[in-house]
Amino acid sequence: MKIILVGASGTIGQHLFTELAPRHEVIRASRNGDVTVDITSRASIEAMFTQVGPFDALVSATGGGHFGPLDTMTEEDFYKGIRSKLMGQVNLVMVGKDYINDNGSFTLVSGILADDPIRNGVNLSVVNGALNAFAVSAAVELKRGLRLNVVCPGLVEDSEEELGSAFPGHIPVSMKRVVYGYLKSVEGVLTGEVIRIY
Amino acid sequence: MKIILVGASGTIGQHLFTELAPRHEVIRASRNGDVTVDITSRASIEAMFTQVGPFDALVSATGGGHFGPLDTMTEEDFYKGIRSKLMGQVNLVMVGKDYINDNGSFTLVSGILADDPIRNGVNLSVVNGALNAFAVSAAVELKRGLRLNVVCPGLVEDSEEELGSAFPGHIPVSMKRVVYGYLKSVEGVLTGEVIRIY
Repeated sequence: MKIILVGASGTIGQHLFTELAPRHEVIRASRNGDVTVDITSRASIEAMFTQVGPFDALVSATGGGHFGPLDTMTEEDFYKGIRSKLMGQVNLVMVGKDYINDNGSFTLVSGILADDPIRNGVNLSVVNGALNAFAVSAAVELKRGLRLNVVCPGLVEDSEEELGSAFPGHIPVSMKRVVYGYLKSVEGVLTGEVIRIY
Repeated sequence: MKIILVGASGTIGQHLFTELAPRHEVIRASRNGDVTVDITSRASIEAMFTQVGPFDALVSATGGGHFGPLDTMTEEDFYKGIRSKLMGQVNLVMVGKDYINDNGSFTLVSGILADDPIRNGVNLSVVNGALNAFAVSAAVELKRGLRLNVVCPGLVEDSEEELGSAFPGHIPVSMKRVVYGYLKSVEGVLTGEVIRIY
């Protein structure tokens, strides 16, 4: 398969590349990858798909949001996650569905905060909840055998040192489990699923 | 209690007024209510709270979104629900928490499409999923005994004639059940709950 990996340089993206590259043609997309893309810009997403041409799967492990106390959060802080992790990934599908080959798949990323909140995590909780609902609802309207799923990981092992203190009591999940969640979507048959890894 | 009812003139709002008015001071807020408010404008929300003064509960039964096929949906269509039903209600809490009395409550509305998609419903699914996650995550950061819940109703009986054909197989829920979901939040003790009525 020809796979576009968006967020290839990130914590999860690097593991996805290691797993997928031996048996697929993987194009790394990021701000400094094989192909550059800024997911907060729909024009940049369009340019990426035009440059890459037809493909079989898009795998996303990218998208930011605001982390901070509810008390000091502004409306603009809220829109950080909406424009990046939410609408960035929504646009990967909305635009990409016109470029992807028949029976292709989209795999997005959300996260455990959709279900299981932490202090300072409101913006990411909201965005993750929205992404889970997007996968469930948009999948039923895709045509040409296209599939769409979202991987919803817990705190991942490689982020424990940096982020663990913000996630009290969260048991980190192995990078292998997260990567295998993606494989279920990319190489498997599921569609419209929230693939929870925790 | 002094209760602000936002969306008082809507399908659910009218039933909420009938239930709450005999035993509470209910201020109807809508585009043409006792108090006028446009929830897509943060300035309008600020003006509403300034006009009403301290209150004990805010009850919301309002917010729009885009209804239409994924294939023809634009990014702007997606933002319709984000600016109205999602950020409108988020802002009712973000702004209102500085005006509400100690131990007050916020009750928002989402809907079944968060879990159970229909054709043409992507925007509302996403917004409802985001609102459910907002209630769960923002509730844990509220102070002064403040509570926050979201009522997540199925297709309501009063909308069956107008909307039923868009919801194949959805069994309409009675207006009484929906209103009682709100009562659990407003007069009860819950916080951080998605009160599913279906």
